[in-house]
Amino acid sequence: MKLVSFEHRGERRIGVLTGDAWVVDVTGAVGSYDMNVLIERYESLRDALAREVEAGAERVPLSDVTLLAPIPDVRRNIFCVGKNYYDHAHEFANSGFDSSAALGAVPPAPIIFSKPPTSVVGPAAAIDSSLDPMQSVDYEAELAVVIGKAGRCAQTDDPWSFVFGYTLLNDVTSRGLQKHHSQWLLGKGIDTFCPMGPAIVTADAAGDVNAFEIRCEVNGEVRQKAPLSALIFDIPTLIRTIGRSISFVPGDVIATGTPAGVGLGFNPPRYLKPGDSVRISVAQIGALENHVA
Amino acid sequence: MKLVSFEHRGERRIGVLTGDAWVVDVTGAVGSYDMNVLIERYESLRDALAREVEAGAERVPLSDVTLLAPIPDVRRNIFCVGKNYYDHAHEFANSGFDSSAALGAVPPAPIIFSKPPTSVVGPAAAIDSSLDPMQSVDYEAELAVVIGKAGRCAQTDDPWSFVFGYTLLNDVTSRGLQKHHSQWLLGKGIDTFCPMGPAIVTADAAGDVNAFEIRCEVNGEVRQKAPLSALIFDIPTLIRTIGRSISFVPGDVIATGTPAGVGLGFNPPRYLKPGDSVRISVAQIGALENHVA
Repeated sequence: MKLVSFEHRGERRIGVLTGDAWVVDVTGAVGSYDMNVLIERYESLRDALAREVEAGAERVPLSDVTLLAPIPDVRRNIFCVGKNYYDHAHEFANSGFDSSAALGAVPPAPIIFSKPPTSVVGPAAAIDSSLDPMQSVDYEAELAVVIGKAGRCAQTDDPWSFVFGYTLLNDVTSRGLQKHHSQWLLGKGIDTFCPMGPAIVTADAAGDVNAFEIRCEVNGEVRQKAPLSALIFDIPTLIRTIGRSISFVPGDVIATGTPAGVGLGFNPPRYLKPGDSVRISVAQIGALENHVA
Repeated sequence: MKLVSFEHRGERRIGVLTGDAWVVDVTGAVGSYDMNVLIERYESLRDALAREVEAGAERVPLSDVTLLAPIPDVRRNIFCVGKNYYDHAHEFANSGFDSSAALGAVPPAPIIFSKPPTSVVGPAAAIDSSLDPMQSVDYEAELAVVIGKAGRCAQTDDPWSFVFGYTLLNDVTSRGLQKHHSQWLLGKGIDTFCPMGPAIVTADAAGDVNAFEIRCEVNGEVRQKAPLSALIFDIPTLIRTIGRSISFVPGDVIATGTPAGVGLGFNPPRYLKPGDSVRISVAQIGALENHVA
């Protein structure tokens, strides 16, 4: 199932995509417009949602709605992974902007930081580059894992059992602030610097995530392209590493890191400027395109 | 006013401390047991709260309640400041555990990271040292600023207008994970590693925060002691730095950093072990004491 949050006639709704052109409104079936509630109760809601899609009574043309981030109100900061593809780890370590370079270009263990909920925007929203005082706005295409289960991940737990689904995320970054403040929250946490979407594909419909290929185009030019199988620390390792000591909350999001090809990797760096568009895609999920203002 | 969250007869409540031994239950007057709601509506609630305290009808002995963290459900990760006292900045940079040391012992700009809401516990709770796989649990006594106003802090805004009040916070840290993972979230974000409390003293009752002195005792031995006037980056600077590009949410918490005297500063380090107690105090707020399990 592909799940979306959207606005229709001025109201927040949640729905299931059917085909390319329609969304079935399941707000009534879930009893809430909050995607976190759907995620939390998915096991018991799954059959009812399937019936809604089948019946198609509440179908709305996609062209009539505004897609929001699939989880517009994340319950807490998004977990993000730094330097999780080999080529990008080297590209970043060589840039002179990497405050983690002392531990080596390729990190010995996952680097985890966070982006606050106020940075999250949907597919239709603009990235506000004026909020970076250092004019160094960069893109980072990432696959994001959505967590469905509460609690810590014990040694005996199957990490995959925590995965609710997958979406796309642009870990937009002020390279200047990222370097200047050493820890990355200020460079990564800026309002509008976390476009997310367009949909969550549920784990039961996603197939093999290692077969996913993530692409990023800036103004139509392919800049990033990598299979998910190229992650340094794979999804089970990330879930085990975070969940060993931190309890998950249903609706948690883990952005798994970005491949080589960010703007900082060019000489001179090719930062984003107003008017640019960034399009991130994975065939099994869809495309997330945002303009820079 | 000194505000607390507490449990009484199995129910979550919020209240105002009067003297040393009583709490006035203001859950009814606020219409919620959620401290975030009180913070958000404080301007319009202030007179009603004062009348409740005056009348004292809903008074409960402190000995009959269990104090919780003043904001048990923080709406997103807590903003934390690293290396914000000169002596501690040197003590940490010299420890070999400081992944930010490349920028110098004293940071050129505030270092901001976060602790997730699941790390927050109240004054009565234990710090679970078994969740640090590297047996390197350390204390960090900090004054925490509670934010009352939404939005970004523009150049023309008065940063003090964002301050709702102050509380105490123990930024408990796994030194091993902090170093191993380069970014600090995993070392700082462990469940139970963010004791908070005992109360929020509102800004209108706090007096001059530069006159505050923070102390930390481990098993009765004074380990940390510093005036708030010794912060490298003061409270207005922290609010301006975070709020320049990140919108605040009422109920946000900023932990302002810890003075010298943490366990890592000793040779060999004096990490916390089960049975230890850590007591943090500021005369104008009270004392936050937690045991280590």
